[in-house]
Amino acid sequence: MSRFYSDTVKNISPYVPGEQPKDRRFIKLNTNENPYPASPAVIEAIRSVTALEARLYPDPEAAALRRTLADHYGLAMNQVFVGNGSDEVLAMVYPAFFNRTDTIAFPDITYSFYPVYAALYEIPGMVLPLAKDFTIDFSAYPDNLKGVVLANPNAPTGIAVTAAKIEALLQQRPDTLLIVDEAYIDFGGESVVSLVPHYDNLLVVQTMSKARSLAGLRVGMAFGAPELIKGLESIRDSINSYTLDVVAQRAAKAAYEDVAYFEKTRQAIMTTRDQTVAALVGLGLQVCPSSANFVFCTLSGVAGAEVQQYLREGGVLVRRFAMERIKDWLRITIGLDAEMDEVIRLLRLFTQQQGK
Amino acid sequence: MSRFYSDTVKNISPYVPGEQPKDRRFIKLNTNENPYPASPAVIEAIRSVTALEARLYPDPEAAALRRTLADHYGLAMNQVFVGNGSDEVLAMVYPAFFNRTDTIAFPDITYSFYPVYAALYEIPGMVLPLAKDFTIDFSAYPDNLKGVVLANPNAPTGIAVTAAKIEALLQQRPDTLLIVDEAYIDFGGESVVSLVPHYDNLLVVQTMSKARSLAGLRVGMAFGAPELIKGLESIRDSINSYTLDVVAQRAAKAAYEDVAYFEKTRQAIMTTRDQTVAALVGLGLQVCPSSANFVFCTLSGVAGAEVQQYLREGGVLVRRFAMERIKDWLRITIGLDAEMDEVIRLLRLFTQQQGK
Repeated sequence: MSRFYSDTVKNISPYVPGEQPKDRRFIKLNTNENPYPASPAVIEAIRSVTALEARLYPDPEAAALRRTLADHYGLAMNQVFVGNGSDEVLAMVYPAFFNRTDTIAFPDITYSFYPVYAALYEIPGMVLPLAKDFTIDFSAYPDNLKGVVLANPNAPTGIAVTAAKIEALLQQRPDTLLIVDEAYIDFGGESVVSLVPHYDNLLVVQTMSKARSLAGLRVGMAFGAPELIKGLESIRDSINSYTLDVVAQRAAKAAYEDVAYFEKTRQAIMTTRDQTVAALVGLGLQVCPSSANFVFCTLSGVAGAEVQQYLREGGVLVRRFAMERIKDWLRITIGLDAEMDEVIRLLRLFTQQQGK
Repeated sequence: MSRFYSDTVKNISPYVPGEQPKDRRFIKLNTNENPYPASPAVIEAIRSVTALEARLYPDPEAAALRRTLADHYGLAMNQVFVGNGSDEVLAMVYPAFFNRTDTIAFPDITYSFYPVYAALYEIPGMVLPLAKDFTIDFSAYPDNLKGVVLANPNAPTGIAVTAAKIEALLQQRPDTLLIVDEAYIDFGGESVVSLVPHYDNLLVVQTMSKARSLAGLRVGMAFGAPELIKGLESIRDSINSYTLDVVAQRAAKAAYEDVAYFEKTRQAIMTTRDQTVAALVGLGLQVCPSSANFVFCTLSGVAGAEVQQYLREGGVLVRRFAMERIKDWLRITIGLDAEMDEVIRLLRLFTQQQGK
């Protein structure tokens, strides 16, 4: 340990991302990437960047991209913020809106970066357990919270809450800032982006890494009241004025403009997901109802680590979180049909061996 | 103001980047960009990214890029950190190594982001004035500092300190972490990267935005003892595991591999700079000795704002900092020869009008 480490570094437990194998021999169903390539329009946009553009700083306001996003969602440009992936956006949300004397809440089973941000900025985080079936019960949330962070659909469960439930929460708690992380919203959930003009206590965070096949380019966004966006801009301009490079800005704009490709690929993923769920249930697995591009499942009486290792040896990477309540569950990203067939084939073999 | 703003947002004064005009009609000498395009090898690298790569998360370790950087500087890979521009790298240095009870020091005239980071993370920053000629006197720095942040060459003055002076400081103050920001080092300064294996209290920060013509891609790096790099990784993995996108990683690697292009362009810039300095002195301006890709100059008895406005009306953007000691100084980025000829022509007209 360096004698120069701050208390922050000494005390923090950083997020651990899913494995990114360098040799790519695996069927990679561990980080919720989109199985379909980025739109051809995205590649064309990437290739349009010239050597003279590369030498100049990118537009710090990302105006062209924000214009496209605002138009897409029926918002004004000053209701749109963009950053280097939704992780960076979320990492700016915490210092923008929460003090070390505030309390914010999130579920015990959710995206594991939420408590990491709270620890980094020393904001007390209240962890509220999900019900036994992994659904959320907002009535258990105290009244005096400064903020609530909610993934919808939730990860790694895939379970969604309705927009009506979120709107009720916004109305009941006008002094609680509700951060709705819609990373997986385009696979069947109900987005609350349309509520942004009506509630100044709502901030919606999205990403291009999932439904837009753009994990490699690192683009995330937040939608909220202009004053909330200004707060995020203050933090950004105190860290890095130019978070989105010229290529990412252009690629992201092209991804949003190619609506037909987006619709086609997300529908295909939802179809594959529903077939996968049926097959898993047929093999006797318990599966959460998924509105995401992954399924969360468990095989009764079998250690999750054992199933994960079996799949890995069969050439398939899936994600498992070594936490008490879900250590025997696997999160399996929805891949191509042929990839899911292989997962099902391996799991069938596994269950047959178990049955002997 | 939103009722959700944190004290941080209420109290901070964000960095203000130089203007990025959208119409590009100006001769743009205000943000120290390289006048030469990125290397053709960089553009080739950008265009090599496929739609299937764009859908996957980038390598969070940026191993190929870090390997290239390590080889280039004769370091090990675990002595190299990369981030989304050197601003992001610096923004991670502060929380990695400094507590709110520590004191760090930097000069009164330097890169204006240093005090912003200190304010963001609530780390007491001691501002120590440069001498009248804008040189730095380390003997004025207290012994018990946790950190010193030093731009070498300094910005916006362009004045460099020798590697020998920095090494003496490292030896005299083993318990002070010295952050040397070498954003402009390739234009004539003496880099201390070669000292990294010998001093565990040295962290060198660089960027690809200047000498590598890659401001648009946002790539910065830090070089230091493996334990220091680990501290930075802890902070990064508590904010955003994938800060560098797949395109930026590949472009940056290509930029470093094209050594011939780098040498040719940086030599050309230094030649143009020396000619520019001679011409400015010939017009009666006072000019700091520059080891950077910009010159810092003033015209005795004339308000800097007036000269800046005159140049702007003539189609040339330069940068001025409205701070007491330097408000009448202009920082002029070194552009192409023809661009600098135009600056000199305008300044000659201006001084002739003044002389009447």
